[in-house]
Amino acid sequence: MPQGKPEYVPEDGLTTRQRRNRPLVVVHTGPGKGKSTAAFGMALRAWNQGWPVGVFQFVKSAKWRIGEEQALRVLGESGAGGPVAWHKMGEGWSWIQRPGTAEDHAEDAREGWAQIKRDLAAQTYRFYVLDEFTYPMKWGWIDVAEVIEVLRDRPGAQHVVITGRDAAPELLEFADLVTEMTKVRHPMDQGQKGQKGIEW
Amino acid sequence: MPQGKPEYVPEDGLTTRQRRNRPLVVVHTGPGKGKSTAAFGMALRAWNQGWPVGVFQFVKSAKWRIGEEQALRVLGESGAGGPVAWHKMGEGWSWIQRPGTAEDHAEDAREGWAQIKRDLAAQTYRFYVLDEFTYPMKWGWIDVAEVIEVLRDRPGAQHVVITGRDAAPELLEFADLVTEMTKVRHPMDQGQKGQKGIEW
Repeated sequence: MPQGKPEYVPEDGLTTRQRRNRPLVVVHTGPGKGKSTAAFGMALRAWNQGWPVGVFQFVKSAKWRIGEEQALRVLGESGAGGPVAWHKMGEGWSWIQRPGTAEDHAEDAREGWAQIKRDLAAQTYRFYVLDEFTYPMKWGWIDVAEVIEVLRDRPGAQHVVITGRDAAPELLEFADLVTEMTKVRHPMDQGQKGQKGIEW
Repeated sequence: MPQGKPEYVPEDGLTTRQRRNRPLVVVHTGPGKGKSTAAFGMALRAWNQGWPVGVFQFVKSAKWRIGEEQALRVLGESGAGGPVAWHKMGEGWSWIQRPGTAEDHAEDAREGWAQIKRDLAAQTYRFYVLDEFTYPMKWGWIDVAEVIEVLRDRPGAQHVVITGRDAAPELLEFADLVTEMTKVRHPMDQGQKGQKGIEW
């Protein structure tokens, strides 16, 4: 079971507490289910710590993750944990005062990344979910080296979780925690379509 | 990205709607992170559908999953989605009118399974998380063949997600959806201990 003693203690001059509280970059990748779902599950813990949570969805459809979005909105508004901000590329980023440029996803993605950089610099959130963020990197819309540089130099104790298939090798190398989700069997293989409550 | 057309349509006499709404048995296994976290993420979608959600935690420590538990309790009580019942073996199952038998985990686990059987028969919930349920099966406390039989014969449209390492091969064979979480890199490898907001 997950909690336990570290296998060795590094000679990095840090106290256990400093090491314990090290802000993490986490990547969930691979062809299986659960990459984003596990990221939103992690967000529940961050919320419970009272941390401000920021979600940036790099997806085209505004309907995606509707269950997770609704849940995190209710949690954020409950006052029982941290506040939650949920940003969706699919309906046009809310901070941009014009309709979403549906014809230019690359530009939309870059505007999302520009906002993330501003928020990291301002330490707006303590826990970030960059959902499906591997794709704009994969497609060359956002520079992987710049992402790594910004994440490496981010101030404070901001945790960042990035999800999506085909994460760049440099990003995997840089991340503190990488989990690969592997599909063993999926109902769609047997002609099963997605269904409410399960896929959305 | 996950949603899409099935690769072929099976000749099973079912309509697309019937196939779509088929209740699923889902298993999250493997040595990586995110097995339970993804299950609780799925529970957010079920909650958002207004479905009654039942969580059964087969873990010794009552402190585990405290963030997820608190979040799902707040959601269940919000009235904005389905109700949530959260049962923990670690503090003694709440339906048992005596202190938890901390010295007999096998008996505790069997009592949890007995309640799950009653709830499945009564269709108490629409979405079940059987967290770390692979372990009492692995340790021989609960019979895998009986679990499969009960799940196979369950009435209605009850979805069941089972998490934990080392799921039995027969269970994997029976399940509709299996995802294996593989550890690529974990901070504990570099002497990092678990930290609040991330591990709990």
